[in-house]
Amino acid sequence: MSDVIVLSVSYDGTALSGFARQPSCDTVQGRLENALATILRMPVETVGAGRTDAGVHALGQVVTYDATGTEPDSRALIRSLNALCGPDVVVTGVRRAAAGFSARFSAEGREYRYRIVPGPVPPLFLGRYAWATPAALDLGAMREAATYMLGEHDFRSFCVAESALGKRTVRTMEAIEITPAIEMGEHCIVIRIVGNAFLHSMVRIIVGSLVEVGRGKRPATWIRDALDACERSAAGPTAPPQGLTLWHVEYPDECWL
Amino acid sequence: MSDVIVLSVSYDGTALSGFARQPSCDTVQGRLENALATILRMPVETVGAGRTDAGVHALGQVVTYDATGTEPDSRALIRSLNALCGPDVVVTGVRRAAAGFSARFSAEGREYRYRIVPGPVPPLFLGRYAWATPAALDLGAMREAATYMLGEHDFRSFCVAESALGKRTVRTMEAIEITPAIEMGEHCIVIRIVGNAFLHSMVRIIVGSLVEVGRGKRPATWIRDALDACERSAAGPTAPPQGLTLWHVEYPDECWL
Repeated sequence: MSDVIVLSVSYDGTALSGFARQPSCDTVQGRLENALATILRMPVETVGAGRTDAGVHALGQVVTYDATGTEPDSRALIRSLNALCGPDVVVTGVRRAAAGFSARFSAEGREYRYRIVPGPVPPLFLGRYAWATPAALDLGAMREAATYMLGEHDFRSFCVAESALGKRTVRTMEAIEITPAIEMGEHCIVIRIVGNAFLHSMVRIIVGSLVEVGRGKRPATWIRDALDACERSAAGPTAPPQGLTLWHVEYPDECWL
Repeated sequence: MSDVIVLSVSYDGTALSGFARQPSCDTVQGRLENALATILRMPVETVGAGRTDAGVHALGQVVTYDATGTEPDSRALIRSLNALCGPDVVVTGVRRAAAGFSARFSAEGREYRYRIVPGPVPPLFLGRYAWATPAALDLGAMREAATYMLGEHDFRSFCVAESALGKRTVRTMEAIEITPAIEMGEHCIVIRIVGNAFLHSMVRIIVGSLVEVGRGKRPATWIRDALDACERSAAGPTAPPQGLTLWHVEYPDECWL
């Protein structure tokens, strides 16, 4: 057997140094790999669907490891992992996929959601899960601006410049929806962004740019010019991490055993 | 002028010792009164609509103080209070009512919501705002049990015994709704409880008793017997505080100036 074990993982990124393992940092991957090593009594290497930054949250992160030689009982594995990783990292499900499955490269699509609480009253229950912007936002202008990003584009302007050196930066954006919502009783704006794959900080730079338009600092068409420029300085600022959640990762049905 | 200033207040009760001011404790009333004394440069006494316990949250708590001699600018007052009280106590609105208005005694109705996350996977984003019960719950049985509490009853069995000594314990329950919901992307059960007024720990004892029924430990009709007994020991345990939020307090429209 060389099947792959696929974990569904949620985390509150507030106190974590991001997803990717780093020496002497408290990371999601570090917590999971340490816990798996304790449970399985051997070193374990994991792969995640998305390398979220420090402070970014996940509802549906997907993490895999090679299950060679292990026959885990799913319920017991979830219980043990949650006892060792929690309370801010929670394993919500375990599935099995065929050898060759990769959390990262088998993914067909990724959905992120970004919460904003505009206005003079700061968020309370959403305080750690939203970007509080004192100014009101023009959602109509933001929606118009978002249309320029739909479909296939070179998103070089919308990622950390150094991360894109010598790399292909064309991505396909399937949906950008900007919707008023009530969560935990508080009013907020949710920006839902769906695409095939994302560059480093791409979602946060898209949100930071849309908010420039929403505040009236830039016209909606500026987004089109920013895409054309293929230059980080042409886009808006990077929105803060706490508003962002990796919501869902989509795989073809035939992946699952 | 002896008008009353009426503050709408939200708070995350996690780190607070409840609403009511107590010496050497961090309380909501203490934070607000200290902040008001700083802003208005005089001692201020406040009254709250509900004295929530340590760990209990509020979305729509209502707090009043006598505005004699003050002419506050609402926006500036909200900004100053939030700068001094936050981030876990947030003033969301300021209104003015006629002399004689009482946050407590003018209230016509109070709505509480209690969140439960049942099942083996612990809540993440809702972790500080829900009761995690490992067992599944029979919502049908809980709804049947709730019907026995609707209308006017003596709720002596459903409050802290010492708090009820020598007091009238008849209250009117307007609604108890038990609904599956998704909040912050997580599945939960919300128990919405609306009544004219509530005894000490009444909502938490009602929830603790409904969960006894939901787990199959007691039949739905046990709630009727528990009410009839007029004895705290006849009802179920007190549900933990973190699931509870004082959601809304209702006043007659003619109160507002």
